[in-house]
Amino acid sequence: MNATTGLFLSFEGIEGAGKSTQMARLGEWLRRSGQDPLLTREPGGTAFGERIRDIFLDPVLAPLDASEELLLVYAARVRHLRQVIEPALQAGRIVLCDRYEDSTYAYQGGGRQVPLSRLDALSIWAGPLRQPDLTFWFDVDPAQGLARAGRRGPRDRLEQEALTFFERARQAFAQRWEAEPERIVRIDATLDEEGVWLELLRHVEARVNP
Amino acid sequence: MNATTGLFLSFEGIEGAGKSTQMARLGEWLRRSGQDPLLTREPGGTAFGERIRDIFLDPVLAPLDASEELLLVYAARVRHLRQVIEPALQAGRIVLCDRYEDSTYAYQGGGRQVPLSRLDALSIWAGPLRQPDLTFWFDVDPAQGLARAGRRGPRDRLEQEALTFFERARQAFAQRWEAEPERIVRIDATLDEEGVWLELLRHVEARVNP
Repeated sequence: MNATTGLFLSFEGIEGAGKSTQMARLGEWLRRSGQDPLLTREPGGTAFGERIRDIFLDPVLAPLDASEELLLVYAARVRHLRQVIEPALQAGRIVLCDRYEDSTYAYQGGGRQVPLSRLDALSIWAGPLRQPDLTFWFDVDPAQGLARAGRRGPRDRLEQEALTFFERARQAFAQRWEAEPERIVRIDATLDEEGVWLELLRHVEARVNP
Repeated sequence: MNATTGLFLSFEGIEGAGKSTQMARLGEWLRRSGQDPLLTREPGGTAFGERIRDIFLDPVLAPLDASEELLLVYAARVRHLRQVIEPALQAGRIVLCDRYEDSTYAYQGGGRQVPLSRLDALSIWAGPLRQPDLTFWFDVDPAQGLARAGRRGPRDRLEQEALTFFERARQAFAQRWEAEPERIVRIDATLDEEGVWLELLRHVEARVNP
């Protein structure tokens, strides 16, 4: 880690993969190590973005088509980078982000089958956008993930998608992991919370040197 | 007017030009003529779009940068076309829309000085989007328009922009009018409400045959 430019870590995976729980745990671990990490999420991360998130996830507004979703997600992302992520990195902080651009490629690309060229075109129009230094992909079987997510209460708009949607999303995550093995670390999220945490910590200690 | 495809009319101009008042009046006039016009607006026009409009105009969230504004506006526009405008036109109705894509070119293009090529790229990505059959551009001096708008109560986020912003927006409207004289009708909005109405009606009677 370069103390003057910070470190940008993203946490990815389908519903119920446990990424949010693990991210919170890593944030706490970093604080106990004397760091001052910034924990944030997408869509959201700013007052502007959280209001977009409310629209994005509201079951009342379903169905959103893929273009509507993408334009909303990138509006929130541009703001999030500009107002939150970039300033924190400039201040030398570690940024932990719950979902980022890999989720767009997985959900709108894999899930909704938007062509890659169309996703790339919007990402380039909105940016060029900074990519994470390291991404933890919490990989879980969609049936197992959705069963876990179902225990959390009412499903949001995306959690109401069919199993095949999440199977395509998982495949898209896998393709990105295969294409960018240096950036994306796959973590076996079928383990219990403690097992996943130990695997995450092993990767963090190997690749992050606070 | 072709009864099977409807007619799409947009109402454009800077703040205080009187376009919303005139549009409501034309809607009433059309109803009295036995038509069933649909009156709508941008950003907004759908439950989804009105929630985006709330974000878009909220002074608390200022400043939004041009990319954030554009991504929000097009998210609402795609939805608006898909859910409201296209179905109404397919049903043979006259659609009156308070602001549409000319406002984007005037405000984000003229006002915020986003290059035309960048606006075109997003418009093409989001579409191709249907253009109005006829656009009424209510042209008023920005100082006069803002003085009128100021009497309506607290200013929204865009109404808080400086006078030079609206001067650039007006220039951009003028450029589009010059480039598309068949589609865009300029109406002298410095007149009083009755005078503007008579001018609008003259153009409607000449170009729309209900």
